[in-house]
Amino acid sequence: MPELNAALADRFNTRLAQILPSPIRVVDQKFSAIDGILKLTLGEPDFALPMHIKDAAKAAIDEDDSHYAAPHGHLALREAISDYLVERFDTPRYEPNGEVVVTVGASEALFATMNALFNAGDEIIIPTPTFPMYEAIANIIGLKVIGINTAPDFVLTPEKLQATLAEHPNVKAVLFNYPSNPTGVTYTGAQVQAIADILAEHQLLVLSDEIYAELVYDGEHVSMAKLLPEHTILVSGLSKSHAMTGYRVGYVAGPAALITHVGKMHQFLVTTVPGPMMAAANEALRHGRADAIEMRDIYKERRDLVMAGLAEAGFTAAQPGGAFYIFAKIPAHLNTDDMAFVYDLAETVKLGIAPGSIFGAGGEGYVRLSYAASTEDLQTAMVRLKHYVDLKA
Amino acid sequence: MPELNAALADRFNTRLAQILPSPIRVVDQKFSAIDGILKLTLGEPDFALPMHIKDAAKAAIDEDDSHYAAPHGHLALREAISDYLVERFDTPRYEPNGEVVVTVGASEALFATMNALFNAGDEIIIPTPTFPMYEAIANIIGLKVIGINTAPDFVLTPEKLQATLAEHPNVKAVLFNYPSNPTGVTYTGAQVQAIADILAEHQLLVLSDEIYAELVYDGEHVSMAKLLPEHTILVSGLSKSHAMTGYRVGYVAGPAALITHVGKMHQFLVTTVPGPMMAAANEALRHGRADAIEMRDIYKERRDLVMAGLAEAGFTAAQPGGAFYIFAKIPAHLNTDDMAFVYDLAETVKLGIAPGSIFGAGGEGYVRLSYAASTEDLQTAMVRLKHYVDLKA
Repeated sequence: MPELNAALADRFNTRLAQILPSPIRVVDQKFSAIDGILKLTLGEPDFALPMHIKDAAKAAIDEDDSHYAAPHGHLALREAISDYLVERFDTPRYEPNGEVVVTVGASEALFATMNALFNAGDEIIIPTPTFPMYEAIANIIGLKVIGINTAPDFVLTPEKLQATLAEHPNVKAVLFNYPSNPTGVTYTGAQVQAIADILAEHQLLVLSDEIYAELVYDGEHVSMAKLLPEHTILVSGLSKSHAMTGYRVGYVAGPAALITHVGKMHQFLVTTVPGPMMAAANEALRHGRADAIEMRDIYKERRDLVMAGLAEAGFTAAQPGGAFYIFAKIPAHLNTDDMAFVYDLAETVKLGIAPGSIFGAGGEGYVRLSYAASTEDLQTAMVRLKHYVDLKA
Repeated sequence: MPELNAALADRFNTRLAQILPSPIRVVDQKFSAIDGILKLTLGEPDFALPMHIKDAAKAAIDEDDSHYAAPHGHLALREAISDYLVERFDTPRYEPNGEVVVTVGASEALFATMNALFNAGDEIIIPTPTFPMYEAIANIIGLKVIGINTAPDFVLTPEKLQATLAEHPNVKAVLFNYPSNPTGVTYTGAQVQAIADILAEHQLLVLSDEIYAELVYDGEHVSMAKLLPEHTILVSGLSKSHAMTGYRVGYVAGPAALITHVGKMHQFLVTTVPGPMMAAANEALRHGRADAIEMRDIYKERRDLVMAGLAEAGFTAAQPGGAFYIFAKIPAHLNTDDMAFVYDLAETVKLGIAPGSIFGAGGEGYVRLSYAASTEDLQTAMVRLKHYVDLKA
């Protein structure tokens, strides 16, 4: 337990020091101290991995896949990613050599991409409410983040985007995430097209995080990589589609002229991704597409269950067409300070949900519920929420 | 195969753009085009993983270790790391909660540490010849690297360190790596102590990469974390000691006041490390210490074999007390331009070794041989080297 020499106490990255620990984890940890709490705070699938995917990882271990993999990932997996993107989302075919890099989850994909493609001082647009990690990474790199508040529909409109671009002519890129964490809202094909048309006109780079693309309940996911491939870096991974969060396999795909830089940064960050985990991902993309659909159908039932419970308790929410989140508005007759609300809810009926304001402008007065939880827990949660509302009536 | 929109072609990190692809990989790839080439270029152990370590990874897969692990890594592994460092290297006991972070190999440990603890413009000393990745990461972050040429003994002397510090009074940190890649040279306890005394006096931070600590052939490894714990961030991992390069498990240990920042950066880089790979690392540290010693003894035999072959061919080398590299001086009667030498050697007798100059000042006129190769390959390599020398005589 060595103490730091006192003279060295100021030795750290001043940008990093300004970034607070993940607010969602801070809230979650406070909830954890409450005896009997039921938490719908984090976005962690409760499913176990299908056996054939586990078997693929174990086979790789048996076959001594314990040496350095190729820096951009196993070629077989890069090929599987290319094929999957074409077959599932009708994207252009990304060349496995040079246009695809396998990463340690979508997290490393985002860090490597943003750190490879941007310089300190660059301006990037991030629609809000949003996943807080985007802004944190942007701040570490020294980017200037320009938020666009998308409340109350949580869909970025062409008008808002145009207005923001007119105000900030030096913007280099727009970060998209749909289906969205935290709102669960996703974009129709027409909505993506309208945005893509503007981005093409303005010669903007698009960083499109589509990690929840398999979890779309009403209609089809339309990828930015299909509509605007010449501008898009697609970020995705297996964590959400196949309940593989702990295996940490993500990827980026895009034009070679950009991916070259991302791949170089990736090597400096992590060298490469663990082989057996890539073998699991390859199996999931080659022979596990039905698994993703099976999980999606269960999430859809859970979503409907939670939406019904929310309605009964007097909450409204923007249409949660994807991911496994619902972003609900706190009814006016309750305490609409979302931070105070979630703590009171947790104390009173032992239900933990995330306050909307931690996701940025537009989130105030909302709460985020994750339905990546068992059906039984979700039923209990809705009983507790109704009970709370009745108590306050 | 999307083409990048031409207007976006300049969209990348200008610091990254200045960093060339890993020169050792460039050389290695050129060699690969030569039919029948035998390469001793890369540092990749040729051993398979012991069965009990594979079994531990497979058991974790069976037990559904597929959800997000704790951000700093499985607690069991952090405890194993703490115990191992105390028992094996007599370090202080690092508190598993707060003083240890499990990383995606030593690569991510280095990137997270350097990015968490330094700001652009900070000065850092790196003795050369050295592993090129250190300077590349430093350049990405915008650090000013001050090299100290340690040729011909490849041990940093107190005198050289003092002189450099006098010239550069604003230096914040020194990066150490011993046993050293590329020289194979390591430091005696007295040599580490002499350096530690100066660093303590100057209140400098020490980043000590001791990934090869288990591969010390003459005497005992003395850790900077034992002698100067209040200043030291220890970087290590399982890749070299247990031939687990492809599993990507490394770690950092140090005072909590620094590790807090490293752990925060780590989360933004990768979220956490794959669970089953951590289970393998835990097994290796708890029940696989004899495996490391067994491999070390084989490496030692190989080192002696290569040293004998080099001597016979007229090459000399600084005492390679550790790691699995020998840094040999090209005899004066041959072409001592090391880059020209290695290409001629590869063309003439189909033996690929690394040119010393790619490892920085002090490496000119040397070549690096990796003996992480089979005994048979090493014997063949020495025959080819002797043949080359005879041809040129």
